[in-house]
Amino acid sequence: MKETTRNKLIDATFEEIYSHGYQGAALTDILAKAGVHKGSMYHCFENKKEMALAAISEKIAERFGTRYRAIVELQGPYLQHFFDVLRDESLRDFNRGCPLANLVQEMSNLDEDFDRVLKGIYAKFRDVLKLIFDRAVKAGELKVCDTDKLALFSIVVIEGAILSAKASGNSKDYFDSIEMLIEHIEMSRS
Amino acid sequence: MKETTRNKLIDATFEEIYSHGYQGAALTDILAKAGVHKGSMYHCFENKKEMALAAISEKIAERFGTRYRAIVELQGPYLQHFFDVLRDESLRDFNRGCPLANLVQEMSNLDEDFDRVLKGIYAKFRDVLKLIFDRAVKAGELKVCDTDKLALFSIVVIEGAILSAKASGNSKDYFDSIEMLIEHIEMSRS
Repeated sequence: MKETTRNKLIDATFEEIYSHGYQGAALTDILAKAGVHKGSMYHCFENKKEMALAAISEKIAERFGTRYRAIVELQGPYLQHFFDVLRDESLRDFNRGCPLANLVQEMSNLDEDFDRVLKGIYAKFRDVLKLIFDRAVKAGELKVCDTDKLALFSIVVIEGAILSAKASGNSKDYFDSIEMLIEHIEMSRS
Repeated sequence: MKETTRNKLIDATFEEIYSHGYQGAALTDILAKAGVHKGSMYHCFENKKEMALAAISEKIAERFGTRYRAIVELQGPYLQHFFDVLRDESLRDFNRGCPLANLVQEMSNLDEDFDRVLKGIYAKFRDVLKLIFDRAVKAGELKVCDTDKLALFSIVVIEGAILSAKASGNSKDYFDSIEMLIEHIEMSRS
């Protein structure tokens, strides 16, 4: 029962922050969306900030886990699975952009706790991409190369591409950029 | 006299928004920073939003103008000037990130007026980069290539690289990504 209340709060908090930013997400709206009274919230979390940090950690980790970490568990071909995820329109919300990037832009220089949590998520994302490229090297799909830099460049292009599509209102900007990233990675094919 | 008050307000508004976001920038802090009374503000602007949109348009246009549009006015070598700007650490504030990207992330899906203004700035930025590449083609520095896509990819990497440096707290992420972008552009050298 308590777990259900907690999950409802986590889901509603993530959605409200994703739509309005942390500073723009009102606690009353989160509680209304979750269908949870303030008193019940205090059984789970001390305040809006603690709830927000939990929601961000858990929901973004879940998104990256489903999309990217899942690739590492597969048998390969690793690069093809990675490219399929990048090209999958259904995984993208260009109106709201990337929840991780939004929060980094909004909060990293304003609050140390947010900065710490976001740094952790970002580092994990980068580690997972490096792991995909390491598997691809091991499987003979990629030449031996600097997989750490390739992971950095991939994150940079993915985040920049989502931002460009949000800025221009044109999802084609995302897909065109992703094809250029894929061409770049293909140059390291074995 | 009125122009000076207006300039003070524009500068203070830009700085406060750059540091705290639009929703996080308090009007009282802007007025205190500008050293302007609320009554005088109303001689120049109707409200915080009108002042913010003016500040964003003028100050970001000024930044891009000084950095990138200036390259078009030079005699070349265009690519080398462009790479020099990209590599210039003194032009970057990795703590606060890119003011355009921050505002797109925060406001594009929340407010139509912001969305329109930011779309305009973004499109101009992209046009200027395309113009630099077009000049480079004309000057024989670059092979004939899709300069529009090269401009898109450049913005994507620049914005993604600044975001990554802000997310990780490590400016090396920016510089490593920029070198990979430069390598990518160098592949189209004549």
